[in-house]
Amino acid sequence: MFIPGFEEVLAASGAISSFIHRTPVLTSRQLNTISGGRLFFKCENFQKVGAFKFRGATNAVINLTDEQRRRGVVTHSSGNHAAALAHAAVSRGVKAFIVMPSSAPEVKKRAVAGYGAVITFCEPTLEAREAAAAAIISREGATLVHPYDNFFIMAGQGTAALELMTEQPALDAIIAPVGGGGLLSGTAITARHLNPGIRIYGAEPLLADDASRSFRTGVIQPAVKPATIADGLLTSLCERTFTVIRDNVDDILTVTEASIIKAMLLVWERMKIIIEPSSAVALAAVLDYKPLFAGKNVGIIISGGNVDLKSLPFSQLS
Amino acid sequence: MFIPGFEEVLAASGAISSFIHRTPVLTSRQLNTISGGRLFFKCENFQKVGAFKFRGATNAVINLTDEQRRRGVVTHSSGNHAAALAHAAVSRGVKAFIVMPSSAPEVKKRAVAGYGAVITFCEPTLEAREAAAAAIISREGATLVHPYDNFFIMAGQGTAALELMTEQPALDAIIAPVGGGGLLSGTAITARHLNPGIRIYGAEPLLADDASRSFRTGVIQPAVKPATIADGLLTSLCERTFTVIRDNVDDILTVTEASIIKAMLLVWERMKIIIEPSSAVALAAVLDYKPLFAGKNVGIIISGGNVDLKSLPFSQLS
Repeated sequence: MFIPGFEEVLAASGAISSFIHRTPVLTSRQLNTISGGRLFFKCENFQKVGAFKFRGATNAVINLTDEQRRRGVVTHSSGNHAAALAHAAVSRGVKAFIVMPSSAPEVKKRAVAGYGAVITFCEPTLEAREAAAAAIISREGATLVHPYDNFFIMAGQGTAALELMTEQPALDAIIAPVGGGGLLSGTAITARHLNPGIRIYGAEPLLADDASRSFRTGVIQPAVKPATIADGLLTSLCERTFTVIRDNVDDILTVTEASIIKAMLLVWERMKIIIEPSSAVALAAVLDYKPLFAGKNVGIIISGGNVDLKSLPFSQLS
Repeated sequence: MFIPGFEEVLAASGAISSFIHRTPVLTSRQLNTISGGRLFFKCENFQKVGAFKFRGATNAVINLTDEQRRRGVVTHSSGNHAAALAHAAVSRGVKAFIVMPSSAPEVKKRAVAGYGAVITFCEPTLEAREAAAAAIISREGATLVHPYDNFFIMAGQGTAALELMTEQPALDAIIAPVGGGGLLSGTAITARHLNPGIRIYGAEPLLADDASRSFRTGVIQPAVKPATIADGLLTSLCERTFTVIRDNVDDILTVTEASIIKAMLLVWERMKIIIEPSSAVALAAVLDYKPLFAGKNVGIIISGGNVDLKSLPFSQLS
């Protein structure tokens, strides 16, 4: 099992830098006051396709062999990774085969189609998705680019923390949301190398707390019917991401749905930027575990900004 | 009737610069493609209190006499000017009396209260607002700081265009929403001085097209029961703003409610920033009058980002 180190994050950064946005690091006096810390938001909601996923996907496509490039890439996903891989591949002349459940929202189907991917629809089960992907692999010889269980994806995702810590070297802590662990493991590889004493946290919805349970038990626990609004964090860790997380992360903090929605509303209202629920999980953890962050310089990876604007959760708040 | 010139905008810029945010100028390749122009968004949604109004309000408070400072300031406003004057005054040790229509968005009421102003609610008519303000003036001796019919306010609002055109000197056109005309007249003073050949546009909801009718007839027309979602643009021009607009603005472009909501959704979805409906009016005009802007460098003043997030209009779109 190959696991990237800081060298590979550096290599990824050099390889992808001219294809991605170097996203801004924003601050908010109001959120500093509310949290008691000094917060530095690395705004991947402004990344291409609206999420950090474009970093890893671009790195994965760049590192294909010539033979792999000719045959294309495939993944199954209805979320940000599908759009990211489609855009990263097609914009570099590589075919992208995306397996999506037929139940996926129209807006996501249109987005992936808009990037020029070949979409295969299937039943909305993991088995159907894997079978459809396997059929494409055997028919086309396409290369599977897993959303996180992939050496180059993990290294690519670590470049967000690299940019953040280059711009803001005096961080005491860094926090990223955790689903499958691609972003958190990449962040941990970078942060631990650049600052061995930094505190590294994952943030996870209580309703999808498999990473937290895995971290505590030392054994990967599957996500059991996760029902969180943070739709980017439904997946489970894999050996590759778990190994990095177990060895480098200080804790995984869980937050309630109400905390996630409140944190999202805070950012929208005070910072006037759009972040998706999965991103709000990290700020929610900073606010729910204040003693860990009070008086500290805290880096927060805002993972993305893709939200269904016609169906927002704010009216749920009292 | 005193009307500020470019000298006064420059003076305002110097006076307020250490109290305001120098807001970013953002671009979006996707919106350039959609519009056919090269758009430069001056993002006053990131200004303190979430709107350009803080510029004029700060300039007005700075220019009070000592006696006026002791007695405080008063205004009537549907929202952003109220918050701006409250924050500008109270943070400088000056009392702020704010008359607000009871129909103002909750988020704006909370903001004004949060800045430490004394709020008086009234019926949502101009008459009721003016009567309530007059009562406070006679009781407290407070100075009326009108939202736009004010020399220092107009000069202050012109500083947004000054920053934009300093950063992006090659604009062919500049466009700002128009309600009472404070922003548009300040923008016009600045833009016409810095670039005599620039095209200057106001953008207005068709459902509140009093400025457009005034511009066409040469006589100030009142806003008659304006019912637009652009709640910052319900007011009518005054002599002071109309004089500047008549002499400097090339045209006032009107847009439908559907265009406003679509433009707002575009910015939220593609740029991941929160702008209020009044701001979207300017982009809506650029999209609805494409021939005027195609191939041009277009400055767009994004006036603010204060939106009631619990009551959004996007589900109205098909």
